Amino acid sequence: MEKSAILHQSDSKFSFPVSATKAVVRLRTKRNDDIKSVTVIWNTSHKFWKKQLRLPLEVKFSDELFDWYVGELDNGAPGYSYLFEIVDGNGTPWYYNESGFDTVLRVEHAFEDNFTVVFPNERDIVTPNKQFEGRVFYQIFPERFARSSDKSDTSYINMDWNTDEPNNLRFAGGDLGGIREKLPYIKELGIGAVYMTPIHQSVSAHKYDIDDYFSVDKMFGNIDDLKALVKAAHELDIKIVMDLVFNHSSYYNPLFQDVVKHGCKSKYYDWYFVYGDKPNKTKLNYNTFADVWMMPKLNTNNPEVQDYLCSVGEYYLRECDVDGYRLDVAFDVSHDFWRQFKRRCRAVKEDVFVIGEDWQNSESFLGNDQWDSVMNYAFKYACDRFFVENRYNAKQFCDYLNGALMRYKDGTNRMMLNLVDSHDTPRFFEQVGHNKSLELLTMALLMFYPGNPMIYYGDEIFMDGKMDPYNRKAMRWDSKEFFGFEHRVLRDLIAMRQRDVLKRGDVRIYEKEGLACIERSFEGTTLTLAVNHSGKDIRFDGKAVYCYNADDGTVHNDGFVVRESGAKA
Amino acid sequence: MEKSAILHQSDSKFSFPVSATKAVVRLRTKRNDDIKSVTVIWNTSHKFWKKQLRLPLEVKFSDELFDWYVGELDNGAPGYSYLFEIVDGNGTPWYYNESGFDTVLRVEHAFEDNFTVVFPNERDIVTPNKQFEGRVFYQIFPERFARSSDKSDTSYINMDWNTDEPNNLRFAGGDLGGIREKLPYIKELGIGAVYMTPIHQSVSAHKYDIDDYFSVDKMFGNIDDLKALVKAAHELDIKIVMDLVFNHSSYYNPLFQDVVKHGCKSKYYDWYFVYGDKPNKTKLNYNTFADVWMMPKLNTNNPEVQDYLCSVGEYYLRECDVDGYRLDVAFDVSHDFWRQFKRRCRAVKEDVFVIGEDWQNSESFLGNDQWDSVMNYAFKYACDRFFVENRYNAKQFCDYLNGALMRYKDGTNRMMLNLVDSHDTPRFFEQVGHNKSLELLTMALLMFYPGNPMIYYGDEIFMDGKMDPYNRKAMRWDSKEFFGFEHRVLRDLIAMRQRDVLKRGDVRIYEKEGLACIERSFEGTTLTLAVNHSGKDIRFDGKAVYCYNADDGTVHNDGFVVRESGAKA
Repeated sequence: MEKSAILHQSDSKFSFPVSATKAVVRLRTKRNDDIKSVTVIWNTSHKFWKKQLRLPLEVKFSDELFDWYVGELDNGAPGYSYLFEIVDGNGTPWYYNESGFDTVLRVEHAFEDNFTVVFPNERDIVTPNKQFEGRVFYQIFPERFARSSDKSDTSYINMDWNTDEPNNLRFAGGDLGGIREKLPYIKELGIGAVYMTPIHQSVSAHKYDIDDYFSVDKMFGNIDDLKALVKAAHELDIKIVMDLVFNHSSYYNPLFQDVVKHGCKSKYYDWYFVYGDKPNKTKLNYNTFADVWMMPKLNTNNPEVQDYLCSVGEYYLRECDVDGYRLDVAFDVSHDFWRQFKRRCRAVKEDVFVIGEDWQNSESFLGNDQWDSVMNYAFKYACDRFFVENRYNAKQFCDYLNGALMRYKDGTNRMMLNLVDSHDTPRFFEQVGHNKSLELLTMALLMFYPGNPMIYYGDEIFMDGKMDPYNRKAMRWDSKEFFGFEHRVLRDLIAMRQRDVLKRGDVRIYEKEGLACIERSFEGTTLTLAVNHSGKDIRFDGKAVYCYNADDGTVHNDGFVVRESGAKA
Repeated sequence: MEKSAILHQSDSKFSFPVSATKAVVRLRTKRNDDIKSVTVIWNTSHKFWKKQLRLPLEVKFSDELFDWYVGELDNGAPGYSYLFEIVDGNGTPWYYNESGFDTVLRVEHAFEDNFTVVFPNERDIVTPNKQFEGRVFYQIFPERFARSSDKSDTSYINMDWNTDEPNNLRFAGGDLGGIREKLPYIKELGIGAVYMTPIHQSVSAHKYDIDDYFSVDKMFGNIDDLKALVKAAHELDIKIVMDLVFNHSSYYNPLFQDVVKHGCKSKYYDWYFVYGDKPNKTKLNYNTFADVWMMPKLNTNNPEVQDYLCSVGEYYLRECDVDGYRLDVAFDVSHDFWRQFKRRCRAVKEDVFVIGEDWQNSESFLGNDQWDSVMNYAFKYACDRFFVENRYNAKQFCDYLNGALMRYKDGTNRMMLNLVDSHDTPRFFEQVGHNKSLELLTMALLMFYPGNPMIYYGDEIFMDGKMDPYNRKAMRWDSKEFFGFEHRVLRDLIAMRQRDVLKRGDVRIYEKEGLACIERSFEGTTLTLAVNHSGKDIRFDGKAVYCYNADDGTVHNDGFVVRESGAKA
């Protein structure tokens, strides 16, 4: 038994309450180690001395290096004291607690050695946002999604909708009215939430360089158009998530322009990080996003800036009734700020959904205090390596996804925003060499993975495009793909995603006979997806309720099946 | 090389900024593993693609199972991207990043795989509280420390100061005026901060069951006495830390009494956790502290309760100018509440020092957002096992202390409140069987360990006493120990603690030839404490600047030496 691989910590992703009395515990061990059993020895904190209960744990998740033993404590009372009994291959029991490994169970030392689940205060429990749980997201780049039929000002349009290559200073004329007109399409596709990239006043097509946080860019409409869009969406039970860019403003934002003009005498000087009397874009003597002079970094440590940006968050919740925010470059903005932002937004709309942009492990931001969710690029990385780079086989793919789940608490995993592409990546369909089967396998996995799946506009009609700006083409409403078989398969998958078992079921991810499998279970029903990307046909026993490039005897290469057992859920 | 033992995570105790540009990285490996080298491959985030810098790490801390490799990144610019190159015993380099171990360094995948130090926002950096760093604390139980010479009301006194055994309903007459009169003694002892157990109105001697948070118990004086105490302490550069009990109130607190009287119709019903119409102390149908009916648990999820208790914190900072708070049973109060408490207190006094009570690993509470410090019982556990239980030898003792340091970021370790006894434990002197040498060895270690050492009133004159209430005897101002050799040694140790090298020096803890050693280094000076509790004399080479039960050739059993090298600091 490899003691150095064993890991647990109280009040963390290894130990967390999920209700007033229930708590999940996870113990990490080396994968396939010579361990005979893992048992939690536990009781309500003040009863542990008198009586020790025992709960055997089982391995529920495994990645390349580790197994995770998981179980749930529930003694009907809040607050638990516990340690682990780990029986090694020789049958020797080890008692693992905050002091490490002991050969003896020292009940009298429980108070100093045991792990604890402290009193589970409601505000500290990470539970899925009930308004958002399980919804399929659809990401829209407003400039390129749809133009309203009664658009008044078309003078600025300098890009033909269907034929011109896009760039960030070309404008095709998409707007908020266009999105509103397409809501029935979006609804019928099976979408439950729309995330729009920024719509504030800005000179670029992407609008990530913002001139005015309290405006809607006039190319896209006005504040009333936003209100109308939200209202129409809500009538169809679609949530609207806006993009907020708080890491940096535009160079041309009047706030920064005041600093450009008045230097250290400007009352906004401390709103940015300027080194010297005045910002100089050639010398770049101020902090920016990614060394881009156009995007000076805001000082989110400054209480005035914090107040200003929090009031932006409050404004759109209060005035326009939007449902959540996606936060741009959120990993570089202070924890301190996000805590205030969440608190102030929650005071306006209790169930506001806050999604950070972060491309790495985001554990330090996820909890009830900062973000609810994160753009889960880890899911994309797994798909890239399995389907694009062919660096992972089915087992490695499953291992990676299990490891990704074990980064966060269960409640967080049920809120992640899972994706394979966005405005910041090449189209996945482009990455897989325009292979529709691979796009569909990926979409099937996306629909079965816990959390919120997100589709980037146009993926449903197999639009292509390399990295920015080519991933931001105008939506091809004239595409024949709307009538294609593969579009139908994708719709079937999205429809399947509406079932409770996929919205909130337990998850197991494993490789079996070369197939990558995601199994979801809820109230007696189990739905299992088995994906074949092995290069050869794989024999498949049992009845499938859905087949793609497969039948009840075989899953062909780049095909998948869905199997169901138990009661319907 | 044991890959499963290797651990690192961005934005955690393994990777944290310590200034605008500097960041510490720690990599955990199996102890004494066959690893030839560990190197950080890194650069400023947006430069990593072009050029990779290399920083070799070295092992600075080791516990029973693990080695920690530590190093500091500083490229003069904020925000780093990095991974580790770990060369195993066979000379094979492994590239360890967020995706695990790779045999290839994939620079082009850095953005998806690398660890990161995100932009170090000032508010997120855990830096030691400059007002408190390195101060020696003195814990006072006000009822039993000193009685003011002009005490007006002595009618309630029912315990002879020097001869009666204490209990929690016996009153010896200690008060705030008494503490004030003893400030010169405290100052002369070398103390920099006083922590007083609660002083609010309460029927008990310990006053952890509070009837009125906005009062000073009349046995102890009034609000003016508190102001006078703080003012006098500040004149001597002594900080005053009050005890706040927010987990529970007294049963007799008017807030809870209103619930007792009006049940669910009381406007304070939701201030507690009552199950049923009315609280019933026999049935105990309400949450309490440790199943004690006298101490109903406050609902710190309730915004009204949060506001009320935050205003208590603000009150004593604003009205009395106290410097910090020790928070009772703080582990069972919500994270959400502590975040608000810290924010609101900081708005009144920017450098307020907030110390939680927690007997376990407190990582989830420590950061800039909740507590600054915690009563570090882990230090006591190590001393118990080494000196009291004889369960640890010098090596195990050092291992445990190293492991305890690696639970937290450096800035946090420099703020911990280290102790070997308190009002909640037996006197350490009692635990070691009235052995003054063992008490002094422990005090020497306490003074050399990073953070704030705390002495419990009377420890300096070797007062004894088993668990509560016997650890709360009245201070023996008539003790002959004030003139004893051992008291002098303790004063020498406290005096030594005023040096910068012990206040803020780097630390190494290791066993050497049977001696437990703590080495501190600062600006070229190194001060090393070597403690012998091996049962035999240990040969000691080199000159000692301080000896206890030792000389320049030998450290006798239960003796220690201090060695100094380099420039004075």
